Order: sequence, then structure tokens, then C-alpha cells
Amino acid sequence: MGSLVVPAVLFALAAADKPADAVKAVLAEQVAAWNKGDLGRFLDTYWDSDELTFYSGGTVTRGRKAVAERYRKNYQAEGKEMGKLTFSDLEVQPLGPDAAMARARWKVVTSKETMEGLFTLILKKFPDGWKIVHDHTSRADPPKR
Amino acid sequence: MGSLVVPAVLFALAAADKPADAVKAVLAEQVAAWNKGDLGRFLDTYWDSDELTFYSGGTVTRGRKAVAERYRKNYQAEGKEMGKLTFSDLEVQPLGPDAAMARARWKVVTSKETMEGLFTLILKKFPDGWKIVHDHTSRADPPKR
Repeated sequence: MGSLVVPAVLFALAAADKPADAVKAVLAEQVAAWNKGDLGRFLDTYWDSDELTFYSGGTVTRGRKAVAERYRKNYQAEGKEMGKLTFSDLEVQPLGPDAAMARARWKVVTSKETMEGLFTLILKKFPDGWKIVHDHTSRADPPKR
Repeated sequence: MGSLVVPAVLFALAAADKPADAVKAVLAEQVAAWNKGDLGRFLDTYWDSDELTFYSGGTVTRGRKAVAERYRKNYQAEGKEMGKLTFSDLEVQPLGPDAAMARARWKVVTSKETMEGLFTLILKKFPDGWKIVHDHTSRADPPKR
């Protein structure tokens, strides 16, 4: 028995770490896609389902099509720009064998303004990898002038 | 074998339903405590840990003591009131054997104003029951005047 204990513990630790690594890779993909101006690739990190939910302020957006429209309206419409996206203080926490939470600060710097705030993501593991199934994003109050 | 299939399925369904019911009971407790003005009882629904996190706008509050102070400052300080709290559009989703997400609209009506928005909660099952371990709350923009 004794000789099996250490490998079993190591295996369990490795298995527990894997989801966090996979989730961090999804977030790195988001940042890379955004900063190349590739909104389609960015949106591929979201679950392609009518059940995808995106909460922001007091507004619920449901389904990937609607989430895609929201991003296009806010960042690719006339006079809008995607700018540069960064995440900081990222924390990933596995919640079960196929689910995890990721939370961080986000910041978008465009030529006109700096927007920043917080997000909480719930991700689930699907046959084709980890996808965001719920996104709650909030924005810091803009600085008073 | 055949006669075992149906009870096994029913057992699995009952087990899957239980976390959602337990989480709904935590949220009902929050509303009941708030509307009796009992902030201490309301705070008992949060994990009593320095790792508890509360995200609102662009602000991270960490640890139950700090979360309690935030609530006291916003709702029990001079000139503040707790008002009446309601939740609507509540959705609970189990994420693993000991974890669940709950999300809904919140509304607080005081004698002076109506505040409303959305929340996403992550709850975990502890020996003494389900507790909120992460709260992301956002507020709808107040109506323009």
C-alpha cells in the first residue's frame, strides 16, 4: 500500500490542476483574439448555445447570437474600436469535474477612453473543450471630472 | 437488471434536484432576513472565510468581515435604510457534487429610491450547509432624468 500513496496523491494533484490550466488557456485565447481585432475568434470561447448567458449592469443577454451582436454593437460599430484588452488578478477555481469559475479585472484601452471593471465566468468542459457558459461583467464607475 | 433501472434513474434525478432546492432555500433565507432588517442573519448565508469574494462594479471586497462592513456602510449607516429586497428570474444550476451557481435580478426599494441589477452567486456545500463563496453583483444604470 505504502508505495502507492505518493503516486496516487500526485495523480490527483495533476488531475486537479488540469482544468485550471485549460481555463487559463481559454482566457489567453480571448486576449490574443481581441488584440488581433478578431471578434469571431474571441466569440468562439463562448458556448454556442441559446442557453449562454451574459450579464452586464442590469441587462441579461441570452444566446451566443445575441452576445455576438452586443459585442459588435459596442466595439465594431461606426465610431467604435476594440482597443487593447488586458486581464489582471486572474483567479481560476475548479468547481467540479467539468466546471470552473474564472474571475479577474478587465481593462480595454482605446484611442478615446479607458474602460475597466471585473468579470466572473463560469466555464464547462464539452467534447470540444472548455467554453464560457455564463459571463457576468461589471464596469467601474468612470472617474469623476 | 431491468427492475433496477427505473429506481436508479429516479434516485439520480432526486439527488440532482437536491442542491438546487438547498440553494433556493439559502436565497429565500437572504430575502427573509433582509426584509426583517436582520443584516447578521443575511450575512450568515455567506462563507465565513477570508477567501469569500464580493465583486461589485470595479471593486473587489475580500473576506466576510469586509463584506459585512460594506453592507453596513451601504444600508445601515446614517441616512441609509435596508428597504425591501426582492429577487426575480432566479436560475439555479448545479456545477458539481458540492458547487452551484445561482443568478437572478435583485431590487431594493427604499423610501428614497429604487436600486436594481443582477447577481451571480457561486455556492459550495460545507458540513453546515450551502454557503455563498463568491458574489458578483452589478447595478443597472439609474434612469436618466
